This record gives sequence, structure tokens and C-alpha cells, in this order.
Amino acid sequence: MALSSETQKRLLAGLAPGHWALDPETRLTYAYDATRRERLPDIVVFPGSVQEVQHVLAVADETRTPVYPRGGGTGLSGGAIPVAGGIVLTLERMNRILEIDEVNFSVTAEAGVKLDNLRDEVARHGLFFPPDPSSGKVAALGGVLAECAGGLNVVKYGPINRYVMRLLAVLPGGELIHAGSKAPKTVTGYDLRHLLIGSEGTLAVIVEATLALLAYPRYQQSFCAFFSSLEVALEGATRILRAGYRPRSLEFIDSSSFECIRAYKPLQLPEGTAAALLVEEDGHDPDDVGRAVRAIAGVVHKECLEIHLATTPEERAQIWGLRKAISPALYKFARYKINEDICVPRGQLVPAIMGAYQIGREAGLRTVIFGHCGDGNLHVNFMTNDDPDPKAEEAVRKLMQMVVSLGGTLSGEHGIGTAKAPYLGLELSPAEIALQKRLKAAFDPHNILNPGKIFTHVG
Amino acid sequence: MALSSETQKRLLAGLAPGHWALDPETRLTYAYDATRRERLPDIVVFPGSVQEVQHVLAVADETRTPVYPRGGGTGLSGGAIPVAGGIVLTLERMNRILEIDEVNFSVTAEAGVKLDNLRDEVARHGLFFPPDPSSGKVAALGGVLAECAGGLNVVKYGPINRYVMRLLAVLPGGELIHAGSKAPKTVTGYDLRHLLIGSEGTLAVIVEATLALLAYPRYQQSFCAFFSSLEVALEGATRILRAGYRPRSLEFIDSSSFECIRAYKPLQLPEGTAAALLVEEDGHDPDDVGRAVRAIAGVVHKECLEIHLATTPEERAQIWGLRKAISPALYKFARYKINEDICVPRGQLVPAIMGAYQIGREAGLRTVIFGHCGDGNLHVNFMTNDDPDPKAEEAVRKLMQMVVSLGGTLSGEHGIGTAKAPYLGLELSPAEIALQKRLKAAFDPHNILNPGKIFTHVG
Repeated sequence: MALSSETQKRLLAGLAPGHWALDPETRLTYAYDATRRERLPDIVVFPGSVQEVQHVLAVADETRTPVYPRGGGTGLSGGAIPVAGGIVLTLERMNRILEIDEVNFSVTAEAGVKLDNLRDEVARHGLFFPPDPSSGKVAALGGVLAECAGGLNVVKYGPINRYVMRLLAVLPGGELIHAGSKAPKTVTGYDLRHLLIGSEGTLAVIVEATLALLAYPRYQQSFCAFFSSLEVALEGATRILRAGYRPRSLEFIDSSSFECIRAYKPLQLPEGTAAALLVEEDGHDPDDVGRAVRAIAGVVHKECLEIHLATTPEERAQIWGLRKAISPALYKFARYKINEDICVPRGQLVPAIMGAYQIGREAGLRTVIFGHCGDGNLHVNFMTNDDPDPKAEEAVRKLMQMVVSLGGTLSGEHGIGTAKAPYLGLELSPAEIALQKRLKAAFDPHNILNPGKIFTHVG
Repeated sequence: MALSSETQKRLLAGLAPGHWALDPETRLTYAYDATRRERLPDIVVFPGSVQEVQHVLAVADETRTPVYPRGGGTGLSGGAIPVAGGIVLTLERMNRILEIDEVNFSVTAEAGVKLDNLRDEVARHGLFFPPDPSSGKVAALGGVLAECAGGLNVVKYGPINRYVMRLLAVLPGGELIHAGSKAPKTVTGYDLRHLLIGSEGTLAVIVEATLALLAYPRYQQSFCAFFSSLEVALEGATRILRAGYRPRSLEFIDSSSFECIRAYKPLQLPEGTAAALLVEEDGHDPDDVGRAVRAIAGVVHKECLEIHLATTPEERAQIWGLRKAISPALYKFARYKINEDICVPRGQLVPAIMGAYQIGREAGLRTVIFGHCGDGNLHVNFMTNDDPDPKAEEAVRKLMQMVVSLGGTLSGEHGIGTAKAPYLGLELSPAEIALQKRLKAAFDPHNILNPGKIFTHVG
């Protein structure tokens, strides 16, 4: 659909000069996200206030115009792509940190703030906002909330929904609602916070959030343990948790990942390395952190080939450099990666990894696996030179079927969006999907908000 | 309304012998909860399987018969009272622990299991389910989830919703749905877990839950710090958190509480005690726990009158005996307590307490305050000999108005039920209440499930 001139006129009437763009270059800039799919919107709006967001949603609802809310555009499931055209509503102007409250351990910020800016700013007050998806430099708070994005420290600190005290959001139609409270606990009415978090911008536009903070843990220590088999590595991860440790990070790296890194830069590994665990602990006292890291290393040291303990910041950077090199290194092997973020019960990690290799082998695709094994969350990468690649698409479908058969879930942290919408019925029953659609209609009766996501492949 | 003989016949047709009761004695047993209000149901059903629950909800939905789901009946807001008659559906037969999974750190249990049985059983496997409301001996898992009940260790371990991986629930109409996953993270579709948790049995009947567990922390240490003023005590609590500690418990006790205890049993306190903090830390290593407790005590020791550090189990029991004596001791002063569980931003604890005393004074009611200050959650008790007492009701309304004006919430852990339904509009706007009612209708279009709760004073 194209925007009627009447709708356009009404939209612009409530927006400040410069808070909208119709030129093709700007529209193209807001046409895609990190999935590399794209669709040109009819208009991009840059509201500078809650009132402007309310205006846009009121006009859009009356005129049945699709609205695509957008944070930093770093999503990996197509959540921000305006698949039915219409309006892209980017929150980037609304990027203020409104309050850092050192007594309540909370920060209140507008949805457009970059996540790392928020984390850095509260850190300057000695406070800590744990959620740390690797896109944090660009990702905006509202998008991170809408996708319920994860990151490297969920095993200790939990997902982002744990930290959301209060949300302000605008409904289709323009009404402003709040959910939750600045009080640390609330059970007044239904908990709409957790319905909005992870709803991928399909229910309401989050405009402001009050987030719970912790005291900043100033000390970190890491180690990397190398194993002769992935089974032994994953058993080691289980024993670490079983011993009562919840390290800040507990990451798994497979041998294909090491092959990738080696093609990218020199790499010395212990002879016979088939997998590695990367562990980091943090805390408020350097002695406590040191003791904890040595104790955690002690849990696995007998079963592993070698442990590289990072005792200096340089050694720590080296260990994490290994983990961070995987993603860019992947492109040494093929032009495209199909990056899935399946999540299974921790006890099913070995069959999930073996199954993913098998599926990749059958499709003739190099398969690289790493991820947050402490959360059962794996990044399975099928590498291909073709886009689209029917072999890869078939492999993804088989992967999703296997994950569900293991009691797992289609997505641990990236969302469903358009990328996984075709598989939703593998995990949810018709009754469950019908219920979810009734909830969508309770918020958005005219289906104007991010249409074409989660439930239907194309809007 | 009375149950028609036709409806009764259809209900009984799908229930095993002994899974229902029509006699007045049994009906009376299921007429009330811990609020001391009561209403006789027409029938009590005791389903022994998910299928029986589905049958009851299918018949009830078709015949528009109210259904009141019930756990242990320990709720403090009227959630289990069958205010419109109809069916009480008690989950007490469905009390099996189905699986304890030591690799995934999870337990799957039916909704009728007593919370303490569940906690004890997983502890035998070295695992820990943190949520610990003081009613745990009697409270059933399903009710604790439906109310999102709190307890003494939320400050460190968070509320119960943090531990819910997967729920099975029956919708009005009889359809069985699941929400969440046994995988540690999931973002597939809307997160219905958190909508069901705290929904007070108004959306669906939870029949089974898979809960995340931690390794059991075998060591605990406590101390009680006595202060000359409540301001200094609460500042101390803030400084403890600010230093990076999240002790297992961080409780506040006011001087009126001590007066109550003293009327109940002998009590030696430091001269000039006006308030106390009760702190407990736990962990997997006795040295770590000891170090942490001494460090936390060190944060407040200069500002307090005295610190009683419990180094033996007996001393620990003594300290907690103090806290647990408050509730029974209250009845030394009056026949009834109006026990509110307001929750405010932690920085507003002092004005909230001062305001509550003032409101109590104006109404001529003795006011006793203690609670989970680490969560901003206070138990404000207005003591009275009359039931109902218009003075006390007016005081509660003023208390609720004050709490909302301080940015707080009507209920931190007890729920709205019937007790706080009259005040809902103080915290939620008409648009927010309308949205919540649309969500209710998306689950329960004929309003058969726990009608008369949350939204309306009487069904």
C-alpha cells in the first residue's frame, strides 16, 4: 500500500519539522535490519516526545496504516523490517536518560537510548545494568526490550525481563499506559511488563523504561578450559553449575569455531582440542573473585586438556578475543551464515549439537556451533555462498523440528519476527496460537502494529 | 445462583467417584481463605487429572457457571473465595512431583503440591527452590504461582516468577495450553507465563509447572542489628545494598513490633532500640558465608546500637524467632489485624512508614510495621477489635492513596483479590483497566473463572 495524501497530511500535522522523512534515501536507510532483508517504508517518522508517538499511533490506527517501531535496527529475526510498507517509527530522538536513582538502584530512560550508553552512564554512578547483547553499541533499549535480547551474562544475571520495573508504552490508538512499578515488587493486576517484553513491537510502542540496577561488580576474572571432546566439555559445564556456581559467563566453543578462527588469525591450542569452555566470574572484591574462579576451574581441571587462566587484563582480553573472533571469522568460509539461536534444556545440549552437525552434513553445509551453554542457548551457523539457499532453508526446518523434539524452543534470544514465523506451529499448538492472536487483538484490534511478524510469514 | 440439576449432572458425569462433594460441611470447608471472608459454593470438585480439570472447565464455560480454583486457601486477598457461588475447584489431589531433573536443575510438579513438600523434596537432591512465603506448609504451588507470592528471600533470589520455566494450564472451555519451555530461555511468541503468574486464577487454571532450581546453599548465617531510629536503620539497609550485597534476607522490624513481642514473651533489647534490621546470608561454603555476614555487619556496625551475630544454629533460631513472633504477638493487642502489604520504591520507605503511623494515629488504631525492606515491601498492620471497622477501612484507603502518591503499589505479594479491588483505580488508569479487562476476555470470554476478583468488589 502507499500512504494516501490525506493520511500523510494528518501525520505531518502533529510532528515537529524535521521529525519525518519521505525521501527515498532516508526510507532506504530504515528498510532493513540485521537479517539483510528489506522493504521500503512509505515514510519514516522520528518522534521527539511521547505526544508525537501518541499522535502517530492515533492517526495510524484510524487510517489503518501499518506502523513499524524501530530501535537500533540490529535485530536478527526481521522484527524491524516494514514488510507491509507504511510508517517506520524510529525512537532514536527519544534517547534521554531521565533519572539515575542511587537509593532505589534504578534508571529511567527513553526507549531510544543506546544500550551501551545506558550501561556506561549508570556505571559512572557505580551501578550495573547486566543485560549485554553483543549489539549493545547500536541496539536501542526499546528494541532490546521488545526482543527480550540475551547476551553473555544471562547464566548469572538472568534475562533482561528480570530488570524491568516499569514500562511506559503507547497503544495503537494513541493511549499511554504504564505497566509495573518503581516499587521493587508489584502484583497489582496482570503483569503487562512481561507481555510487552519480547512482544517484538506487535502490542504497543515502549517509550520509557525504569530498570533495576545492581551495584557495579568491579572485578572480573576469566579462564578458558580446553577439552578433548564436546561431551566432556558440556559435562564440565553441568558440574560447575551443580557445584553451586553461577559464573557471569559460561560459553561453549566447538572445534569448527576454532578452525574458523585459525583461518582468520594464528591460534595456538592444546593438542587434541575438540571443544572449550570460556568462564568468567565477577564480583565486588578481588580476592572473592579470584577464589571463585580458581574454585570453578578446580571443578573441571582434571577432565580438561589445559586451562588458561587470565590473571591480567591483557590475558582476559585475549581469551574473550577468541570468542569474539568467531563471528567475523565465519565469513572466511562462506559468504553467508544462517545464524540460529536455538535453546534446549541443558541436558539436551549434546544431542542438539550432534543433531545439528548431522543436519548440516546431510545438507552439505559447514556447521559452526558456539554459544551460551550455561543457558542451553546455542548459535548454530550453517554457512553458505547462496542467498537464498534452499538447502540451508531445509536444514533450518530440520533443526527447528529437532529442537522442539528435544523439548527446546525456536529462539532463545533473537525472537520470531519474520525469520522464524514459518516454524511457530512446530512449538505452539493451534489453540496456543489462537490465544496469542486474541491477545494481539486485545492490544491492537486493527493489526496496525508491526504486522507480518510472529504469526504470519508476510503481512 | 444455584447449580441447575442439569449442570450438576453433566459435571458429575466426567468426574470419578469421590471427586466431588455437595454436602454443606465440605462446601463450608472450601468457603473461605485467610481473609476470614466466606461464601458457600454450590459444589466442590477434586479433580485427579488434567482431563478432569478440562471437563469441569468445559461444562462450566458452556453453562456459564463460576469456577473458583483453589490451592491451599492461605491467600490474604480473597483470591480463593467463591464470591458468586458455583464451583470450587481444588487442586489438592493433583499433588505429585513428576520429575526432578538434576542436569537441567528443574522440577516438574502438579499444581496441588504443597510448597514446602516441593522445597523439601528437591532439597533432598541437593537442589533449592528459593520462593518461601511463610504459608508454605499449607500453600499449594498453583496458588503461590497464581498470586505471585513473595516471602523472606526475594531480595537475593527474586520473586517466584523468576523460577517458572514452563506452565501447563487449562483455559475456560477446557483447552490445555503450555507456556514457556524447559529450555532455560525462550522468546517464542508472547510470554504467557508471566501473564498467568499473578493473575489470581482469573485467566486459566494452572495444573502443572516446571520450575528452575539452584544448587542448595547449605550454609546460613544471620545477624540482628538494633538502631536508635528507623531512619538510621533504613539508611543502613540502603548502604548494605549499595556496597554490593544482596543478602538472602533483609528485614525491617519497628518498635511497635517489639512492644507486641514483649507482651507475648520476655525480650531483652539494647536500651533505646527504635528499629532493627534482620539480615541473613547463605552460600555453598561456610567461610564465604561467614566472611560475607561479617562484611555486611561491618557496613552498619558504626551506626547501630548493637549487633547480635548468630554463630550457632540456636542463635540463628533465636533471631528468626523474634521475626516470627510478631504475627502471633499482634493478637495480644487486638482481635483483628488489617494486614496490608504495600510496596514502595526503597527510597520512599521512611515517608511510607511515617505516613502509615500518621494514618493509624488519626484513626486511633495501633499500627505495627515490619517487612521485607530489601524489597520496599512493608506489612502495615492496623489493629482493631471490630470487624468490620469503618475506621480501619478508611485508614486502608488513606494508606493506599499515600502509597500510590509515593510511586508505590497496592500489593507487593498478596494480590488484589476482593480485598484491594476497590482501590485498583488508584493505581491503574481507566485505559489500563480497560486493557486488562480485554486481556481477561481474551482468555475467559464468559467470565466464568474466579469472577469478582481484581476488577470488581463483588462478582
